Amino acid sequence: MRKIQNALISVSNKDNLRFLIDTLKKYKIKIVSSGGTYKKIQKLGFKCTELSSFTGTNEILDGRVKTLHPKIYGGILFKRQSKKHLNEIKKKGYENIDLVIVNFYPFEKVLTNNSNHNKIIENIDIGGPSMVRAAAKNYKDVVVISNPNQYKYLIKEININKGSTSLNFRKNLAEEAFMETAYYESKIFEFFNKKNKNIFPSKNIFSGKLIKKTRYGENPHQQGAIYAKNDNPDIIQISGKELSYNNYDDIYSALNLTKSFPHNRGVVIIKHANACGVSIHQNKIKSFKEALESDPISAYGGIVSCNFKMNIDLAKEIGKVFFEVVIAKGFDGKSLNFLKKKKNLRIIDCSNLKENIELSFKSKFNSILIQNTDNIIFSKKNFKVVSRKKPNKETLNKLIFAFNVCRNIKSNAIVITHNYKTVGIGSGQPSRLDSCQIAINKMRKFQDFKENEELLAASDAFFPFVDGIEKLVQSGVTAIIQPSGSKNDKDVIRFANQTNTILVFSKTRHFNH
Amino acid sequence: MRKIQNALISVSNKDNLRFLIDTLKKYKIKIVSSGGTYKKIQKLGFKCTELSSFTGTNEILDGRVKTLHPKIYGGILFKRQSKKHLNEIKKKGYENIDLVIVNFYPFEKVLTNNSNHNKIIENIDIGGPSMVRAAAKNYKDVVVISNPNQYKYLIKEININKGSTSLNFRKNLAEEAFMETAYYESKIFEFFNKKNKNIFPSKNIFSGKLIKKTRYGENPHQQGAIYAKNDNPDIIQISGKELSYNNYDDIYSALNLTKSFPHNRGVVIIKHANACGVSIHQNKIKSFKEALESDPISAYGGIVSCNFKMNIDLAKEIGKVFFEVVIAKGFDGKSLNFLKKKKNLRIIDCSNLKENIELSFKSKFNSILIQNTDNIIFSKKNFKVVSRKKPNKETLNKLIFAFNVCRNIKSNAIVITHNYKTVGIGSGQPSRLDSCQIAINKMRKFQDFKENEELLAASDAFFPFVDGIEKLVQSGVTAIIQPSGSKNDKDVIRFANQTNTILVFSKTRHFNH
Repeated sequence: MRKIQNALISVSNKDNLRFLIDTLKKYKIKIVSSGGTYKKIQKLGFKCTELSSFTGTNEILDGRVKTLHPKIYGGILFKRQSKKHLNEIKKKGYENIDLVIVNFYPFEKVLTNNSNHNKIIENIDIGGPSMVRAAAKNYKDVVVISNPNQYKYLIKEININKGSTSLNFRKNLAEEAFMETAYYESKIFEFFNKKNKNIFPSKNIFSGKLIKKTRYGENPHQQGAIYAKNDNPDIIQISGKELSYNNYDDIYSALNLTKSFPHNRGVVIIKHANACGVSIHQNKIKSFKEALESDPISAYGGIVSCNFKMNIDLAKEIGKVFFEVVIAKGFDGKSLNFLKKKKNLRIIDCSNLKENIELSFKSKFNSILIQNTDNIIFSKKNFKVVSRKKPNKETLNKLIFAFNVCRNIKSNAIVITHNYKTVGIGSGQPSRLDSCQIAINKMRKFQDFKENEELLAASDAFFPFVDGIEKLVQSGVTAIIQPSGSKNDKDVIRFANQTNTILVFSKTRHFNH
Repeated sequence: MRKIQNALISVSNKDNLRFLIDTLKKYKIKIVSSGGTYKKIQKLGFKCTELSSFTGTNEILDGRVKTLHPKIYGGILFKRQSKKHLNEIKKKGYENIDLVIVNFYPFEKVLTNNSNHNKIIENIDIGGPSMVRAAAKNYKDVVVISNPNQYKYLIKEININKGSTSLNFRKNLAEEAFMETAYYESKIFEFFNKKNKNIFPSKNIFSGKLIKKTRYGENPHQQGAIYAKNDNPDIIQISGKELSYNNYDDIYSALNLTKSFPHNRGVVIIKHANACGVSIHQNKIKSFKEALESDPISAYGGIVSCNFKMNIDLAKEIGKVFFEVVIAKGFDGKSLNFLKKKKNLRIIDCSNLKENIELSFKSKFNSILIQNTDNIIFSKKNFKVVSRKKPNKETLNKLIFAFNVCRNIKSNAIVITHNYKTVGIGSGQPSRLDSCQIAINKMRKFQDFKENEELLAASDAFFPFVDGIEKLVQSGVTAIIQPSGSKNDKDVIRFANQTNTILVFSKTRHFNH
């Protein structure tokens, strides 16, 4: 237990001070504070010593230097149990500072709302983090309050202990103090790093704010949580049961696939982070039905994502199938009312989504794998027709659609399409040939094509041998798009020509694991 | 361009100062420094002002307070272009500090090598980060050196510019300064956070040190890099071509699966982050052969991981197949010599791997998904036999092996095993029934069982209907392990009893996406 005699208060956010200071007063805790905080405390009607008269040095450089003084740091940092330290403090005439209440200049907020470089730089707080760090380092003797959310806990603690605090209380606050400084610092680093466009610095720091703990992680025996890298949430839940960890994962798989869709068109159905049906038909209901028909069995309990605003007609169609989540770029009133009646259905608005995320990362054991996101938007220049039979403009566009879907399916991925919809998806296989077979089996199970339909196929990486493309052609596929790069490319082209198949090579490979 | 007149040097790592200070001397840059750094500079034979005589305040509290003085911070932080600031500095009699050379108390190193709490706390540097932050904030006028690696760049810059530095140079150093402080802070936070066992704090910070940039990311048009969360590398590459981003991903998939193996036993072959063959036969060669036979076609170009020390006999066996990577818990001399001859084969030693990683995270758009790792080690208590036919001890162990493999296969996952080896793996499907079919097809393709063999199957989540288990039993499976939780569990149990199949329920589900 440590008694608090003197407190230093220097806060950028000056809300909610009254009740706190009232409590300090109750236990005869003296207050030192600076500039705006001093004025605020006076205005609230409390006694307070101004920092400059406490240190004997006035504030300079427009407030850039005010608290950086040995009398402050001596008062915070001396070990109360050390005779040597006590003597030094006494000799200097310093006073103990037992409670430090600080919050920082709002760097992150200014950054979000402001593009003025000087203003952003001015909001890099120097004194605040220094005091918080010093107090947290000396948590055995000193209480540090680094966030206004902690006021209530401090009030409770000193009321219970009559002006004192426990070691455990101070230690928890020290953790939170370093959480605040580390987060603050990560945001400043991010700002400079982005300016300099240095994507792989020698040390890297990622940070996020807790959006929420999910009920559990990927499985019930794991704990899970979702953090946001900044204050702009990707998605907003409008209604329905709480989102699960796997829901988030699936939602992002859906939204990633949507990135390649034409503006305000397209439906994708996701199950286990893989698409099981995709269509970009311009008619919303038709688009949904086509996506569903691609694999109606797998769609059950999945996630449906619409790259446009929801209307009531489509909502009713969607309502006929059991989905866990429905995503759209907004919902009109009628559709929302209708969908909200399904209590378990999670309704997600993705209108705010920023698509230009540059880096993605994942942890594996003690390592972090970082890469920039596969953000390519294809134009015809990215492709080369290598078969004798040439695709017309429409067929090439259809092939590009198939390829865009395919790059979002877990590797090895094969996607068979008809017009602008999937009809067979083969995913997650160690062998490309198996993925071909899975896609073909799906098509045979759920589609009933007449002869001479235009069936197209995409592969996320090259066919190592002719066998894969052979299987597809034998199943009715007439045009194929794939990355090149196999030593058997020539054989594959020869086979395409022998069978009058259109073959298009992309210049990029799209593994996605 | 800014001329440097005065430098402040306060370094924990005192190496490589001579050449640097020699350069400063050449351009008549005056030096102020404290404590140990002052002594070191004197010893090297250079002139230097001691910090306490510069500020007029001596160091106190065993060095806890030495640089935290307004004369230092005024000298760093004033804007050289501001008349007001210049006047204030002049009036106070402060001098400009144009170059700050600081490196911090080695907190991370002390943490790694030391468990003494007081020593760790004492190595939280307060003054160092404060000076670095102040100098970086004022980068328009001040040069900040926050890491000894930067000495060479500073020497070059001031030699080129005859004692001055460019704005761009200072800005890049400011970025690196905040990189250092953010990283330093993240490590302190991590220390307190671990002590408090607070797995989902309201703000979270992850950091890593660059191990290396890979040639590219998951695909050639993406850039990629690998970072380490701390100084203990998981794996060491002994030989062979540079590891690719996908190699890392596959290696960690292999090592994750290995976690459940008996001590020093077991081989897994990985392709596209999924296992295509696993065996824990106690004979090393037999174990490898069994893993290979599970799917010899997919194994081509994959990764083979041995949960034991490599010997020459096995190395020769492995050498017959084309693999990209071979992993083992060390290699004896002969096997290493043999494998090294394959220039393209990457040889990885995983002896150092720490398996107890508690949290894993991945970024998706603007969000970070965090969960604790699926680290359960099963005992028999985790399972319940629900069929009339009971497994003997051996069969139950075999089922647990199958389940351990299955939890590491991408969902939906079905694994068929025979003894302690896989014979059919169905992965990455939106429908569980399809995963059953894929596993069965694999088995039929590569195995040739007599009647009445004991075939076992595992599912990573419950069977929603009887159809999946029915398919497996019809294919010869005699014992099945799966999580429970379907509303059709009773039907599944009934079907097991009708067909005299052993059915075991686990208490945990193991999705893995």
